Amino acid sequence: MTLILALDFGGTKLAAALVNIGSREWLRHESCLSPDDGNATTDLEIMYSLIDSLLKSQKPDAIGVSFGGPVDATTGTVRLSHHVAGWENIPLQDLLQDKFTVPVSVDNDANVAALGEYRFGAGIGNNSLFYITISTGVGGGWIINGQPWRGMGGMAGEIGHMVIDPAGPVCLCGKRGCVERLASGPYMAQNMRETLQNQPHRGEILRRLVGNNLNLITGKVVSAAASQGDELAQEILFKGAWALGLGIGNVANLINPHLFILGGSVIKSGDNWWDVVRKAARKTALPEIDLTIVPAALGDDAPLWGAVALAELAW
Amino acid sequence: MTLILALDFGGTKLAAALVNIGSREWLRHESCLSPDDGNATTDLEIMYSLIDSLLKSQKPDAIGVSFGGPVDATTGTVRLSHHVAGWENIPLQDLLQDKFTVPVSVDNDANVAALGEYRFGAGIGNNSLFYITISTGVGGGWIINGQPWRGMGGMAGEIGHMVIDPAGPVCLCGKRGCVERLASGPYMAQNMRETLQNQPHRGEILRRLVGNNLNLITGKVVSAAASQGDELAQEILFKGAWALGLGIGNVANLINPHLFILGGSVIKSGDNWWDVVRKAARKTALPEIDLTIVPAALGDDAPLWGAVALAELAW
Repeated sequence: MTLILALDFGGTKLAAALVNIGSREWLRHESCLSPDDGNATTDLEIMYSLIDSLLKSQKPDAIGVSFGGPVDATTGTVRLSHHVAGWENIPLQDLLQDKFTVPVSVDNDANVAALGEYRFGAGIGNNSLFYITISTGVGGGWIINGQPWRGMGGMAGEIGHMVIDPAGPVCLCGKRGCVERLASGPYMAQNMRETLQNQPHRGEILRRLVGNNLNLITGKVVSAAASQGDELAQEILFKGAWALGLGIGNVANLINPHLFILGGSVIKSGDNWWDVVRKAARKTALPEIDLTIVPAALGDDAPLWGAVALAELAW
Repeated sequence: MTLILALDFGGTKLAAALVNIGSREWLRHESCLSPDDGNATTDLEIMYSLIDSLLKSQKPDAIGVSFGGPVDATTGTVRLSHHVAGWENIPLQDLLQDKFTVPVSVDNDANVAALGEYRFGAGIGNNSLFYITISTGVGGGWIINGQPWRGMGGMAGEIGHMVIDPAGPVCLCGKRGCVERLASGPYMAQNMRETLQNQPHRGEILRRLVGNNLNLITGKVVSAAASQGDELAQEILFKGAWALGLGIGNVANLINPHLFILGGSVIKSGDNWWDVVRKAARKTALPEIDLTIVPAALGDDAPLWGAVALAELAW
């Protein structure tokens, strides 16, 4: 029996699970929310205690780690977390290797999710795929020729900062009209708030959902209002879907992968959102290019299953 | 001694050369222009006669072929030529294999050039690179993980039809503001002609270069006028360079390759053109991404050297 320990440092959630290689059922599984005022040290302490209660007296043969933030996967060093303080340049792979004396692999959550979907999810049997998460941010991970592709400096997959509309709104990255600036949950919420400030008579259904408190608008609220027929919410939601679809079409022209897999909370925005994404992608890709876009299959445990696949590669 | 025969069906030019594996000097080299009213049959006849005069009594050990048009590289079947009639679905690999009874590999010119630059040119030592040709059209070829990457249906590399400006002019492909629509030679010439029809007082230097005959405007004329200080020509040339640079920055965010190599006639448009390309790419790529953009090194023999590299892979 080969025992794999899978870890997920998710930004808001910490999770760990244990599995026998080849099995698709967890032996044991533990998770908890990160404390609001936590930092890298508290995250690690909590994770170690989850691991203790999982392992009992057992020793894993390999460890795979999904981290919610940029990672140098060649050394397994975390660059930083956008959610939790103190993660700058933490050599997570070395820390875990010293503690458990087994092979450890660490990668960022988008790359890990791509690998997980390829090995265990919607991507099984596809030689190449691009996994895209559309959530708080928009990011992606590659499988090319059956292997993770991370790019020279580990920066591949950043479809969120592909420019779709050079005349569009300014993104946090400094450019205009990035995919993320139009399609992510928080930016759709911001677009909604700004439009309502200028056109306060619109968005009636949405305003009712938040009791007229614009601070309560989230991406999820925009989706909900859109599905209830709010025209402004639909406009904003479908603009995001259009931007994402155009980005996907551009990627299809560039790399022509076998499959696109979409994950993250925004993909729950309903059939109309999917229709707009698929139509914009189809229109942007050259007619000779086959284009298949499917939802992720692994759900909330995606980072853990991806971490299992990562550990298998390293073992 | 292993003898490699390299063939280049270039659309306007046919070329063939013979080399010993490992050598960087041709044993013999033959080329000629395609006849204006030629077709696939005449192209093949001419190529066979070039080969006869190269080979004399020798027999090659492998044959590599660069074709100027879409190719199914898995079977070596030409899909079509945009320049020469009669190439639809010609099984070029099979034809040559039957005739010479040696391994034959066929691929389109952009993929072949990428491979040639990787093995013998500006890309030596880089594990990943994107080769882009900016000429009559704009196309590209990939090396990823030290291997050609052609995509699921052989359509990867089509940066020419990445949408840069959804409000831009309509491209032959039906979309607006593609890289090719803004950056290719013929489209820059078209943009120039259309602008001069509406603003006939502009482009004085350029109009002098063509004796006021707008039909004589080519991409090369636009470049020449720009370098002589024609402000309208500069505007159009730099708009193309900006579109290309933005596309390159988007590709860097997506794939983060070690190197970008630019080839094709438009790259001879001078230092200012290169500056605009590099600045737009730098501004579009995330700051963490290293970005190196260099000119192709192999010059006019690039397709033949690429064909040698392709034959080596197959042999």
